[in-house]
Amino acid sequence: MSDNTEIKQHIAILQHLVHQKVSNLDLPEHPVRLYEPISYFMGIGGKRLRPVLALLSAELFGHEAAAAIPSALAVELFHNFTLLHDDIMDNAPLRRGKQTVHEKYDTNVAILSGDALMVLAYQQLLVAAPEQLPALLKEINKVALEVCEGQQYDMDFQGRERVTTEEYMRMIKLKTSVLLGAAMKMGAIQCGAQPTDQQHAYDFGLYTGLAFQVQDDLLDVFGDPEKFGKKPGGDILANKNTYLRVKAMEIADQTTRMALNSWYAAPDSEAKVLEVTHLFRSLGIRELAEKEMESLLQQAFEALDSIEGADKQAKAKLKAFAQYLIAREE
Amino acid sequence: MSDNTEIKQHIAILQHLVHQKVSNLDLPEHPVRLYEPISYFMGIGGKRLRPVLALLSAELFGHEAAAAIPSALAVELFHNFTLLHDDIMDNAPLRRGKQTVHEKYDTNVAILSGDALMVLAYQQLLVAAPEQLPALLKEINKVALEVCEGQQYDMDFQGRERVTTEEYMRMIKLKTSVLLGAAMKMGAIQCGAQPTDQQHAYDFGLYTGLAFQVQDDLLDVFGDPEKFGKKPGGDILANKNTYLRVKAMEIADQTTRMALNSWYAAPDSEAKVLEVTHLFRSLGIRELAEKEMESLLQQAFEALDSIEGADKQAKAKLKAFAQYLIAREE
Repeated sequence: MSDNTEIKQHIAILQHLVHQKVSNLDLPEHPVRLYEPISYFMGIGGKRLRPVLALLSAELFGHEAAAAIPSALAVELFHNFTLLHDDIMDNAPLRRGKQTVHEKYDTNVAILSGDALMVLAYQQLLVAAPEQLPALLKEINKVALEVCEGQQYDMDFQGRERVTTEEYMRMIKLKTSVLLGAAMKMGAIQCGAQPTDQQHAYDFGLYTGLAFQVQDDLLDVFGDPEKFGKKPGGDILANKNTYLRVKAMEIADQTTRMALNSWYAAPDSEAKVLEVTHLFRSLGIRELAEKEMESLLQQAFEALDSIEGADKQAKAKLKAFAQYLIAREE
Repeated sequence: MSDNTEIKQHIAILQHLVHQKVSNLDLPEHPVRLYEPISYFMGIGGKRLRPVLALLSAELFGHEAAAAIPSALAVELFHNFTLLHDDIMDNAPLRRGKQTVHEKYDTNVAILSGDALMVLAYQQLLVAAPEQLPALLKEINKVALEVCEGQQYDMDFQGRERVTTEEYMRMIKLKTSVLLGAAMKMGAIQCGAQPTDQQHAYDFGLYTGLAFQVQDDLLDVFGDPEKFGKKPGGDILANKNTYLRVKAMEIADQTTRMALNSWYAAPDSEAKVLEVTHLFRSLGIRELAEKEMESLLQQAFEALDSIEGADKQAKAKLKAFAQYLIAREE
């Protein structure tokens, strides 16, 4: 309990550091419709998990958190670029309860300011030591293409009736988890960690990201609505592929699969959410997803434990951070 | 005349080299709707002017053209990324006579494959020598933001009745010319040129680019339709801000300005093109634009002449290339 408070306080300090750096980005004023949307979107906030991971990675390798600021900002700016463009593609009106950029301005503004935001991410790398630049650039390029691939697979899957669990896991790995891996790895690179340790750090981020995504899917259906802050079943109503849905389709018999398919094809209703949830329960999907999440978290911890000579306290902090992420109810 | 043939042959060889490298990019196959649109768009071709400039810059500084391949490809991929996204913003159905990506696939595919194309541009930099990476990355980041700024100013101007010549020149500088400057400069960086010479090389590209754009505006109205391959006045019918239009508005008396404005506000017709062209003629706009173009080309040549110790033959080639660009009729 006290550990949890301590890690929460530490995370809050790191989040504040990221927040300060983001606020001080010092963007040009003109053209207004290029840079104002970027300030607006970056100001909406979010939990800054990825940059915090980069900072924790610096601590893991015995440096001050601030040593990884260039990587932290690059990853956060890149993440926001992907959100900005994803919002256009998903036709999303809101992001974190605020108007999306294409809604507040227009689609052209959102495309172009998103493009500029990606450039700003690359710009941060120039703050790092020049000898680290090749490795940092290589890593962000790799993860950037993977995130694009993940987004394309996600869009491809929307038109398909059946997605395998394997395909789904690969999609969320590319779309979201690799960036958590890259945050850890880039922090490690900036602190001169050995390649094998960079890889372990990456794997910790990657598996934590995967666990986080499965938890996200779980919360949508089984989260406490009071704590979660929204009605359950949003993903069901959006006919989204989630771990729960693809796993259910994988293990269900033909009758249940047909029932699931026909509910997913049905228009929005309270019954749709209730019936799909009921089918999930009858298949024991909640338990399977929780088991999967635990297994992913275990793999994350094993990767972390493989890093020899890393700061023990920092290791404990990272584990606590991962558990805190998974245990969240919002 | 023989000089012209020689430079044309040399350019053709460099274009072929770029073409080969572009064809061998070796993109992943999956996801198909991410990478296929990139191959398609890169395959449409174009004159590859920017990468050729980077290669000529390498020759200018006494290296083989191939020394600047990473810069050449980075600039060409970046250029195509901007075209791909600009086509969405401009709602353009065709690019070089072929379907644009958002027409052939859809807008989401065009947004995302454009994003990936930008990443591929950055990826090319990793082929350069690591010690050149900081300067190359800094340059491409700078020019990338400027091109975004130029595109935003262009869109801003579309909603305005009056744009000054100064504003117009700044817009085309940002939107198109800085990338020609960057192509020259990045080639120079890769060949270890001194910073002052890098700047002169940049200026040569920049002013050549500005002259090229003014020529483009001229050709639209005064080009030989048979050689130019399209009907004159496309920019007039599209109510585009061009050097001719903004200069005419600057020097015309109030009556002529009102006449121009009312013709630009009128629906498409042959009379619209004829009358606006007539007003341009009466104001001597063609001669003013030609004078401006000559002056810009002069500035380009002066920048080139300022480079001490550069290869004389390569200087002559670059001048011939610039003149060939300006003298083109298509």
